[in-house]
Amino acid sequence: MHFALFGAGRIGWVHAQNIANHPDAALSHVYDVDSAASERVVEALGGRVAETPDEIWNADSVDAVLIASSTNTHVDLLRGAIRAGKAVYCEKPIALNLAKARTLAEEARGTDVPVFIDFPRRFLSELQAIHERIRGGDIGQVEVVQIIARDFQPPPLEYVKVSGGFLRDMTIHYLDLLCWLTGEAPVEVYASGACLVDPAIGQAGDVDTLMVTLKMPGGALCQITNGRRSAFGPHERVEVYGALGLLQWDPGHGRQVAHATHAGVTLSRTEPDPTLIRQETFAAALDTFIRSVQSGEAVTPSLADGLRAQIIADAATESLASSRPVTIAY
Amino acid sequence: MHFALFGAGRIGWVHAQNIANHPDAALSHVYDVDSAASERVVEALGGRVAETPDEIWNADSVDAVLIASSTNTHVDLLRGAIRAGKAVYCEKPIALNLAKARTLAEEARGTDVPVFIDFPRRFLSELQAIHERIRGGDIGQVEVVQIIARDFQPPPLEYVKVSGGFLRDMTIHYLDLLCWLTGEAPVEVYASGACLVDPAIGQAGDVDTLMVTLKMPGGALCQITNGRRSAFGPHERVEVYGALGLLQWDPGHGRQVAHATHAGVTLSRTEPDPTLIRQETFAAALDTFIRSVQSGEAVTPSLADGLRAQIIADAATESLASSRPVTIAY
Amino acid sequence: MHFALFGAGRIGWVHAQNIANHPDAALSHVYDVDSAASERVVEALGGRVAETPDEIWNADSVDAVLIASSTNTHVDLLRGAIRAGKAVYCEKPIALNLAKARTLAEEARGTDVPVFIDFPRRFLSELQAIHERIRGGDIGQVEVVQIIARDFQPPPLEYVKVSGGFLRDMTIHYLDLLCWLTGEAPVEVYASGACLVDPAIGQAGDVDTLMVTLKMPGGALCQITNGRRSAFGPHERVEVYGALGLLQWDPGHGRQVAHATHAGVTLSRTEPDPTLIRQETFAAALDTFIRSVQSGEAVTPSLADGLRAQIIADAATESLASSRPVTIAY
Amino acid sequence: MHFALFGAGRIGWVHAQNIANHPDAALSHVYDVDSAASERVVEALGGRVAETPDEIWNADSVDAVLIASSTNTHVDLLRGAIRAGKAVYCEKPIALNLAKARTLAEEARGTDVPVFIDFPRRFLSELQAIHERIRGGDIGQVEVVQIIARDFQPPPLEYVKVSGGFLRDMTIHYLDLLCWLTGEAPVEVYASGACLVDPAIGQAGDVDTLMVTLKMPGGALCQITNGRRSAFGPHERVEVYGALGLLQWDPGHGRQVAHATHAGVTLSRTEPDPTLIRQETFAAALDTFIRSVQSGEAVTPSLADGLRAQIIADAATESLASSRPVTIAY
Repeated sequence: MHFALFGAGRIGWVHAQNIANHPDAALSHVYDVDSAASERVVEALGGRVAETPDEIWNADSVDAVLIASSTNTHVDLLRGAIRAGKAVYCEKPIALNLAKARTLAEEARGTDVPVFIDFPRRFLSELQAIHERIRGGDIGQVEVVQIIARDFQPPPLEYVKVSGGFLRDMTIHYLDLLCWLTGEAPVEVYASGACLVDPAIGQAGDVDTLMVTLKMPGGALCQITNGRRSAFGPHERVEVYGALGLLQWDPGHGRQVAHATHAGVTLSRTEPDPTLIRQETFAAALDTFIRSVQSGEAVTPSLADGLRAQIIADAATESLASSRPVTIAY
Repeated sequence: MHFALFGAGRIGWVHAQNIANHPDAALSHVYDVDSAASERVVEALGGRVAETPDEIWNADSVDAVLIASSTNTHVDLLRGAIRAGKAVYCEKPIALNLAKARTLAEEARGTDVPVFIDFPRRFLSELQAIHERIRGGDIGQVEVVQIIARDFQPPPLEYVKVSGGFLRDMTIHYLDLLCWLTGEAPVEVYASGACLVDPAIGQAGDVDTLMVTLKMPGGALCQITNGRRSAFGPHERVEVYGALGLLQWDPGHGRQVAHATHAGVTLSRTEPDPTLIRQETFAAALDTFIRSVQSGEAVTPSLADGLRAQIIADAATESLASSRPVTIAY
Repeated sequence: MHFALFGAGRIGWVHAQNIANHPDAALSHVYDVDSAASERVVEALGGRVAETPDEIWNADSVDAVLIASSTNTHVDLLRGAIRAGKAVYCEKPIALNLAKARTLAEEARGTDVPVFIDFPRRFLSELQAIHERIRGGDIGQVEVVQIIARDFQPPPLEYVKVSGGFLRDMTIHYLDLLCWLTGEAPVEVYASGACLVDPAIGQAGDVDTLMVTLKMPGGALCQITNGRRSAFGPHERVEVYGALGLLQWDPGHGRQVAHATHAGVTLSRTEPDPTLIRQETFAAALDTFIRSVQSGEAVTPSLADGLRAQIIADAATESLASSRPVTIAY
Repeated sequence: MHFALFGAGRIGWVHAQNIANHPDAALSHVYDVDSAASERVVEALGGRVAETPDEIWNADSVDAVLIASSTNTHVDLLRGAIRAGKAVYCEKPIALNLAKARTLAEEARGTDVPVFIDFPRRFLSELQAIHERIRGGDIGQVEVVQIIARDFQPPPLEYVKVSGGFLRDMTIHYLDLLCWLTGEAPVEVYASGACLVDPAIGQAGDVDTLMVTLKMPGGALCQITNGRRSAFGPHERVEVYGALGLLQWDPGHGRQVAHATHAGVTLSRTEPDPTLIRQETFAAALDTFIRSVQSGEAVTPSLADGLRAQIIADAATESLASSRPVTIAY
């Protein structure tokens, strides 16, 4: 499977390496507005630099495209790929503007082009295990989902300003996760936020600390706490409480040395915190995409999954602005 | 210090034993509508059976009263004790009806009778350590508080019906805890609930699964998940996230044997779950009360603390009914 | 069952309270060389002060004796009780001198007087669970047993001097535990020791740090590390490795608050360390003794169990002195 | 730095990749008795196939050699490299025969050729942290060291037969670790062994379950439990107890999902057990070697370190055969 890559930035490199390493994939073209960036990727990992997107749409040798460029280019590239009949692996989100995302999803509906929207947490083996165990009935009916996700440090302010807001930028990962784990889409959302980490984030109109409460159609209550700062390193925890028990993922411990004294036990990391979402997770996502396209199965997370998460994020954003719970219309 | 005890039920016995064991306290009277119950306590632990509350109000030998009778008797007994000038240790809540609780608090304001409303979690050594560390600046500015509390099994339906609702009956403990830990009172509350454990609870007009979001005046966001069922035993966890770190109490592990096999590690309890709030916690509360009264210090948790928690619980109940966030007026 | 208690010291009080609290037991006599000590027990918990041991041997009302006096009195009191036909609950060890313990065991062999030698770890619920799981085949054939036990601080030097040595005083608990858990008695022992904690212990001819290796008849290898000091509080861990898995008891965590910062996670205790062997453990031992005597079942740990542990401790002491492994002759 | 690699087997590949990835290293020659194996390495990672070792000794372009061939070739290759003045990175052990290892060490003494004997555990970041903390006085005087290391499954019987015995093959890693962590070399060793995993191992004259006790010159007692089978995956734990506290490395937990039910909490791995000693550990070792050689610092672990570990392993083997403690003569 020959891939054209859009975007030769940090995440583009991750995908380029995964394409190069995959036994059934090869990198055929790289496009970036900064052609020097494209050249660096091509030099290291093969393929050729594309001068324009059209060169890619018109290349018969290209089977699939991987969109890792900036969010504001996603819709046009998705549209181009769908028209050219190329299978698509696209970074979330579809678009910052929900209306544009809905329009694109409409356009794609009539075609059979596989469109995959990457939510990488679905490819962490621990969360896959929890997903399977919920399906298998290990905890009975789901009653409560609690997710906490706090980044080590806020991103640069420039990124915050174009991110679409904390809910659309980061919480969206957990909104998708919630739908995937429970097999349901929430019917109502209430979001509270505050700017506690950096006043500049507040001046830019965003929040850096968030609590989101969601009601599921079957009655389960879900809660996501999202933060831009964690003094002790990146922190994620996913808990699903059911009638028969709890499934929990809490990877906070890492590689540690225990030091026990009269003052207690201190567990210290000996290495910088592992990034929770590593290259291998993206590789697993790519492999899933390739196998689905090759076998003709529907790709997942699908464009519809991506749209659903954005609809919830938009409703949450409305709730945050209005300080009222918002019913979610899909 | 001579104590008269109101209420010779299960919790009355706990307090009677703690009074009998305390070096500076003695049980002088016991009153219960069931005089046979009073007699059993007196026989085992001393003192005399009071035929009427008045007998207690009029007894010069009585220094303090401990109110452990049913909630609907609290206001009258508190009023009697305040008028008679007896120091009071009263189980939460002050009253099921907030207006009555407010009125009583008004009446008490002009007097110097110490009134202590028992919120036993304040006397758990771990939560006291967290309280002190927050005061000491160990985690910097508080950003997020997350509390989860799930009982092993729902109480009898008869109890649910007269409990005043899940928020006023159980969540109130964590509402007080939140105020005590952060040193602030929340300004807004949003509550979501569902009946997932037992439909009979729903038919009785209550919920058994709750999520409450609270905004603090300084911007911190707080969240309480409360449930009537936990498949793996009583489950409480308190987490306070600050700018510099996290303080966490998660006592879920208890006395355990680890069994490691190819399937993983199973940690199993070898005894029934310990009740988190044990006799020793109530004994610590009693001791605090006695020392405060003897030294002339203000007792705490005070009547005002008890009233504050009820005001929040009432606002949360209104939010649950209206599905809207409610501003809290103290 | 009416109990006469020998020894009104610290451990005597523990047993006296357990006797007083047990529904099927009552304290009838207390004997101590310090009759004022006996009187204090009697005043608080009932019974009468015995002027001489003979008074107890001759009292028809006495069903059983509990020997909690100093070790050098054990053999004479055991002999007296056996002759008088009183069931015996005796603190370990039988005697400091192994020959005397053997002689006593010979004498007891012909009688049907129940003699119980208390090894309290057998009555910890976690170790009972491990015992049952080994019996139930949960870990298959036992391959390795590792026990570590380190006290918080050394006992007073006066105690060390009359203790019979670290192996006979403390390690003996784990020698019995090992036999009980595996259902086997070791065939060879090798002990290494050092004096690292307090030179005065070495000057008194003892060690404060010990490693003991034992070979079991079925080939399993066992190891006990014993120490008189642990900077972080009393520390015991029992691990049994089998062909199919590991059973582990590691109670080191207690009641803790977690404090996570950029430096790691510190788990601190909020209370003095719990004594691992609490009053409730001795109460469970007493209850087992009473139920066995009442039902006519053999009591266990038996006099033979006590003798076995002493034989191993003596062989280990010989190994420590000679720096050679010693074959154990029972 | 140009490397010639001896040995193109599994571990040879690991080293070849690390050489190819290191910014200051390049693979110049590969020699293996199976020249097809050499060719596969060269094809993938560069360099040329050497027909004979002499070709390497005579190549001016070769700065260093990496010996990853079978143990029986080590001495001759080490000697060749020393004579040719090539810096050496050699897999442990120096030789199966201690006399040969001693002779080689003698020969090397007069030269200034850097010789590095790889004990990869020294390059695990957690054990490095423990090493530094002991040096820094975090636990005061070392009193007890306990190491447990159990492999998932025994190696093929063919390997066992040529391995030199369990002590020389596997325990040697922990003998070196012990010396490195404590900064001392043991003065006496006692080893007990059994064949509990596979009778064929016993028939081959070896054991599969080992306990080794070592006395350090300063009085500390050390213990290593080594096994060829662990039902729950590879299991290593290193504990150093000192006067002021404990340092512990216990990596057994890995990536886990917790499932809490009424039966307890099960922690299950979602992936095959990580190999504790990964490619990155060998890469760290290589990097240390390169930096030492380049800067002219002494390489470590040195040939003397490798010899010391073998001397202890030999003494332990003698102890195992004779069932007596053996004084170690360096």
